[in-house]
Amino acid sequence: MIPSLLDELLDRAFEEDLSGGDITTEATVLAEATARATAVARKPLVVCGGEMFVRAFRRIDPDVETKVLIADGTFVEKGASIWQVRGRARSLLMAERTALNFTQRMSGIATAARTYVAAVAPGSRTRITDTRKTTPGLRVLERYAVRTGGAHNHRDNLGSAVMIKDNHIIAAGGIAKAVERARARAPHTSRIEVEVANLAELDQALNAGADIIMLDNFSMDDVRTAVNTVASRAVRPILEVSGGITLERIRELSQVGVDVISVGALTHSAPAADIALDLALD
Amino acid sequence: MIPSLLDELLDRAFEEDLSGGDITTEATVLAEATARATAVARKPLVVCGGEMFVRAFRRIDPDVETKVLIADGTFVEKGASIWQVRGRARSLLMAERTALNFTQRMSGIATAARTYVAAVAPGSRTRITDTRKTTPGLRVLERYAVRTGGAHNHRDNLGSAVMIKDNHIIAAGGIAKAVERARARAPHTSRIEVEVANLAELDQALNAGADIIMLDNFSMDDVRTAVNTVASRAVRPILEVSGGITLERIRELSQVGVDVISVGALTHSAPAADIALDLALD
Amino acid sequence: MIPSLLDELLDRAFEEDLSGGDITTEATVLAEATARATAVARKPLVVCGGEMFVRAFRRIDPDVETKVLIADGTFVEKGASIWQVRGRARSLLMAERTALNFTQRMSGIATAARTYVAAVAPGSRTRITDTRKTTPGLRVLERYAVRTGGAHNHRDNLGSAVMIKDNHIIAAGGIAKAVERARARAPHTSRIEVEVANLAELDQALNAGADIIMLDNFSMDDVRTAVNTVASRAVRPILEVSGGITLERIRELSQVGVDVISVGALTHSAPAADIALDLALD
Amino acid sequence: MIPSLLDELLDRAFEEDLSGGDITTEATVLAEATARATAVARKPLVVCGGEMFVRAFRRIDPDVETKVLIADGTFVEKGASIWQVRGRARSLLMAERTALNFTQRMSGIATAARTYVAAVAPGSRTRITDTRKTTPGLRVLERYAVRTGGAHNHRDNLGSAVMIKDNHIIAAGGIAKAVERARARAPHTSRIEVEVANLAELDQALNAGADIIMLDNFSMDDVRTAVNTVASRAVRPILEVSGGITLERIRELSQVGVDVISVGALTHSAPAADIALDLALD
Amino acid sequence: MIPSLLDELLDRAFEEDLSGGDITTEATVLAEATARATAVARKPLVVCGGEMFVRAFRRIDPDVETKVLIADGTFVEKGASIWQVRGRARSLLMAERTALNFTQRMSGIATAARTYVAAVAPGSRTRITDTRKTTPGLRVLERYAVRTGGAHNHRDNLGSAVMIKDNHIIAAGGIAKAVERARARAPHTSRIEVEVANLAELDQALNAGADIIMLDNFSMDDVRTAVNTVASRAVRPILEVSGGITLERIRELSQVGVDVISVGALTHSAPAADIALDLALD
Amino acid sequence: MIPSLLDELLDRAFEEDLSGGDITTEATVLAEATARATAVARKPLVVCGGEMFVRAFRRIDPDVETKVLIADGTFVEKGASIWQVRGRARSLLMAERTALNFTQRMSGIATAARTYVAAVAPGSRTRITDTRKTTPGLRVLERYAVRTGGAHNHRDNLGSAVMIKDNHIIAAGGIAKAVERARARAPHTSRIEVEVANLAELDQALNAGADIIMLDNFSMDDVRTAVNTVASRAVRPILEVSGGITLERIRELSQVGVDVISVGALTHSAPAADIALDLALD
Repeated sequence: MIPSLLDELLDRAFEEDLSGGDITTEATVLAEATARATAVARKPLVVCGGEMFVRAFRRIDPDVETKVLIADGTFVEKGASIWQVRGRARSLLMAERTALNFTQRMSGIATAARTYVAAVAPGSRTRITDTRKTTPGLRVLERYAVRTGGAHNHRDNLGSAVMIKDNHIIAAGGIAKAVERARARAPHTSRIEVEVANLAELDQALNAGADIIMLDNFSMDDVRTAVNTVASRAVRPILEVSGGITLERIRELSQVGVDVISVGALTHSAPAADIALDLALD
Repeated sequence: MIPSLLDELLDRAFEEDLSGGDITTEATVLAEATARATAVARKPLVVCGGEMFVRAFRRIDPDVETKVLIADGTFVEKGASIWQVRGRARSLLMAERTALNFTQRMSGIATAARTYVAAVAPGSRTRITDTRKTTPGLRVLERYAVRTGGAHNHRDNLGSAVMIKDNHIIAAGGIAKAVERARARAPHTSRIEVEVANLAELDQALNAGADIIMLDNFSMDDVRTAVNTVASRAVRPILEVSGGITLERIRELSQVGVDVISVGALTHSAPAADIALDLALD
Repeated sequence: MIPSLLDELLDRAFEEDLSGGDITTEATVLAEATARATAVARKPLVVCGGEMFVRAFRRIDPDVETKVLIADGTFVEKGASIWQVRGRARSLLMAERTALNFTQRMSGIATAARTYVAAVAPGSRTRITDTRKTTPGLRVLERYAVRTGGAHNHRDNLGSAVMIKDNHIIAAGGIAKAVERARARAPHTSRIEVEVANLAELDQALNAGADIIMLDNFSMDDVRTAVNTVASRAVRPILEVSGGITLERIRELSQVGVDVISVGALTHSAPAADIALDLALD
Repeated sequence: MIPSLLDELLDRAFEEDLSGGDITTEATVLAEATARATAVARKPLVVCGGEMFVRAFRRIDPDVETKVLIADGTFVEKGASIWQVRGRARSLLMAERTALNFTQRMSGIATAARTYVAAVAPGSRTRITDTRKTTPGLRVLERYAVRTGGAHNHRDNLGSAVMIKDNHIIAAGGIAKAVERARARAPHTSRIEVEVANLAELDQALNAGADIIMLDNFSMDDVRTAVNTVASRAVRPILEVSGGITLERIRELSQVGVDVISVGALTHSAPAADIALDLALD
Repeated sequence: MIPSLLDELLDRAFEEDLSGGDITTEATVLAEATARATAVARKPLVVCGGEMFVRAFRRIDPDVETKVLIADGTFVEKGASIWQVRGRARSLLMAERTALNFTQRMSGIATAARTYVAAVAPGSRTRITDTRKTTPGLRVLERYAVRTGGAHNHRDNLGSAVMIKDNHIIAAGGIAKAVERARARAPHTSRIEVEVANLAELDQALNAGADIIMLDNFSMDDVRTAVNTVASRAVRPILEVSGGITLERIRELSQVGVDVISVGALTHSAPAADIALDLALD
Repeated sequence: MIPSLLDELLDRAFEEDLSGGDITTEATVLAEATARATAVARKPLVVCGGEMFVRAFRRIDPDVETKVLIADGTFVEKGASIWQVRGRARSLLMAERTALNFTQRMSGIATAARTYVAAVAPGSRTRITDTRKTTPGLRVLERYAVRTGGAHNHRDNLGSAVMIKDNHIIAAGGIAKAVERARARAPHTSRIEVEVANLAELDQALNAGADIIMLDNFSMDDVRTAVNTVASRAVRPILEVSGGITLERIRELSQVGVDVISVGALTHSAPAADIALDLALD
């Protein structure tokens, strides 16, 4: 994550919250007052967002001293002290909410990712990935949080890799033609992924030479059949499963041996992690 | 919500998803192909975001025809058709994910808001509000979604209204001084809200003439005592409750007679509503 | 005022003045030349904008050394040295005009604010406030300048607080209904202000329980009657006066006892303060 | 003035005023209500800003119908109807203040420009110009307003034309060297202007072949001498006067025959024109 | 290419050229004058940029009528009329240079791409691609121009696909480890490309299972050996060649049978196409 | 060139290349690894862009140490080390391409400028200038590169100076009227340039008092006649030549004695300079 992008996100957030100043803090706290504050986990969570936390305060006031106590990706228990800041009380109070809004979301996603990854059967090499169902404007942070929690990223955006879905297939006149067209035109650096709705389409995708095949809302039985079908091929494509993923299904799917399980809920429905800022005036 | 702000949000989202084009659609769908698509509720939900849905497609392609079938704020059952678009297949496919990412989030918050509001005891005038715990960059949309779901907004940002918290009180040297300073300096259009941690502070806030008093993490017994204490005053301040709010507590709190219950989870932890886009090529 | 907002304003100003470089300075001044410069008051004024002055030079050249000799809010006589900068002559020459354009305007408003505040009758608690009649894009600076000159801010923007004007009243079907609607929907953190055109409307606003009543273009006699009417109420609303405010009327209005006088001219018509930059090459 | 620049200015202004919505209008005015509004001169003024007025309303709501009754540059008496808008009442109320903030400023400058131009002696060809002392961010509008009022623009910015001032002269080691360097390096499309502090410097500037000579804070006698000195030259440079310009001095200076009088007050101290919006609900 | 990105590019270009207006056109051309203009090829070229040409004029003036006479991707001879615009003369004159600056560059790249593609041996399936050596800020346009000329795009950016170069190999401790790490962490949608400097590294990359192998500055003999080596493998990776590509080498390389030839010069050194705008006043 | 403009250009470029991170570097290079890198000329060139090179790396990572070994404007032979950076290997790898994309272009233009300037006949005072045919969004860098290579800049943009072309002449009703109108309305700081198509128009332009006359696509004989014609005038305008400029024509034109030769190819068709970054891990 490059600094200028992070600052742009912070500036936008501060503009929402502080474009009219902080009339309470300006009225009640002297400019000279200093304070220290510690971000504390109120529940178990995977830490994520130290860089954003630190930048939030320093963007408001470059004189604020900051310390990352626990690195991103660490699982901590309730009560753990995560990050610390020290400096002008006004600066700490003004940046507090924005710093937490970012990091509670990031840690929430990282924590959810960890839970999903933990559901994978031991020994399985199945990978949990996110999707493009991210919060508009925050994709870079959320993809980072997914990785921080131990899961993987799917393609970054519509320009990064080919993913042929039902309507592309219809528009192209079948899976074979769609794959052919994509292979002919898309960058050679992209694998060709095809989403299939049933086992018949799976065969077509295999014959078309798809590099990745995504089984959309398959029953467990059909997933098993798909895994076996694919295993018999000389060049085995990557098998991805998506749709209606629950923690229970992840265990089963990973035991069956699919390569990738993509989970929209990782980013669109992860609840915020519970982090509080304990602030004490000097 | 003013158009240019909505377009700015859309542009940012499209830049994330489409700055490198849509290499799948460009390869597989002819430029001339047209299609129609309908957004359908896959689970019961409160509709929210029709304007964003419509703008998303028209921002990609001004020729797309759009129709809002169900107005924002309506509760619909699973299977309901909500919005429709018709035009170039490429345009519909390219805008689809962005349109849904916004509206699933907005409808998710509206649906959550409705659930919280429904938990208020019948006949009670207690108001459910959001907080400043919104997604950075999306506050305007999320506050709208909260209203759409029947809840209310708290102050917009740190410049809109005074809210004196524990550290402001310490910095100012007590509740009385903090309120006095705020009243002397803040715009006369803002009520003065004070957050109190116990009944002793409640008395101080009452004596200081606070317009709103927020009971932070009070036990139910203390909330009852607070309501009675306040009721005996000639000029009754608004009583707000916050911290650890569950649906069960909302019923109880609203029966006791607090005026406002502010709920951070409304915006920071509402899961996305389940909306799909059924797209059919012409 | 948060740093990134100030820098954004500076960048915009520099883009206007320096996007094509400074062809005179580049041609005539060697890159190695250094200089020092002092901002001097050419007429009596209230100093305002030290932070912007300093940032302007450092934004062009982080090596420039800066010194604030006189703090914002101080009234100085003609000839006073206010701010100092030292560094590359080219940097000083390039930033000079932009630094002055901001600070002459800010000091001009602060000086005007001081004049209006000084017109308040001794012992009176009447408050002078600004309005939303600010220079587009510079509201944050101008509201700061108003406070720096000793006056107060009115609501920040249309989302911060409720202010019911004639057309809102007509649209809602009367003052009572307008107030009722606003109270039912607006954030509980906002006071409800009603603008009234005559004494009959004042009574309606009082009965509706308005928190603030603004007397629009009232005669002095009607203002007096209004003050007396309001004084007889158990819960006294805040009385604001606006329209055709002159320095003479301020004295009279403050003696009568209105709480607030809002003055558009503070921001839309304050002449720039006369500040020069005395620059000397080393 | 290109449309996208104007919209950028409007968006910025709306973001200041409407990023949190208009909580009063949303609460009190039904979405269906329509209205019409007319901008009316409350005092004599030169109309300026019709394009901005119209765009402001249409930017908030493309359905608003707009009409420019009086063209920019026209002098109108008190009571004149200038511009009209018609459409959703909410849209008109939300855009009103921003539309006026821009146009009152622009008309104020145009009106001031007209006053200065009118002070030029009949028959004289002396030109009144602005300076770079414009409101940061609004230079394009203010320069337009200056032209609208009948005055002229000076150079647009530091990259447009050469203007050698005292410190450039010192840095270069004298007027001759400064002019020589500027002529050698600056674009050949720019005239070379030299600011002189006395008659001795005037001679140096003449000898150096300056295209424009600016007499800074000259006494009237010295201005006369300068005009005569210059008149005797084969190739006559343009004579500009600046510093302490009053309406009285303009008459005198124009009679003496200087070519250009540049006036910072045109843009930095012109009071806003008094324009009101008479809004009536349908 | 999404409309809002194109407009953003146009706005930036107009800001460079027109932020101070067009003082010549405003002075010499009446506001009422109308004109028509035709873009004409002065030399043979591949047309590219119709959408940008059209948008440029309509962005300055939505009333301008536009017509694309020849579609993007068409090769035209000298003298061909490509695009037409009609409307206010001022608008046409103001947008002319910007419209041409974009389209001459785009058509220049498309023309260069066509030349490179034409150099591929008949019957060969070798693909010519661009690189990331694009003009900063214009990558989206330049990649489009490359496709328009018949060549292909390489990966869009550093986040789209994996490309392991010498320093990545050194940092990871060898090709095998680098590929293993990349496969373990990067999105499964990306092929793994490895750049190799000699035939020994080629073997390592093959053994590591690289999906694409890029031969960097190989001699023709080594390229031949590489092609043969790869052909013997069960799963054949894609072979890419880069470095010192000339038109002559392209023929030879394509005959040998490499899959991809990537050419930085396509975007960083293609001369502008010669297109003139013939403008005639009505 | 002001820092914030340069950073804005860098941020835009990084957003193109790094908005999705650098998935190769993140996977293969440890966060702790450090490296050093040197930019080396692979062919003779004029160095240009040291400031951009340095800023690119420091914008990604403020801890990177940078060194400019050779100043802008210096001609270097193949193999010369130009700039150096040292710091985290990840940071160097991520910024490399962007840093080179800017500086190869800038050095390419500077090198081209030097070649054109070198073609001027010895002893001649003819000046080579650029035009407005610059890369959209990069004008400030390209104009700087032109100066760095020893050539001059033409007017910065349409608002900087008057340049009357064929259509302006037609619209105004002749050269005399066009010049008169421009002189009456444009800033007095701008020279009046007229583009003429033949010797008859040259006479008209001379009689109209044009300050600069641009001979558009004149034959060499006509250029000679023009030079002689102009030489006979008391007040000699500047003579500029444009259209179909080659290195051979430059020698001839400069011998004949024209003042200015403007060359679009300087910016629109200069090939990128060949600069490589030799990066070595510590």
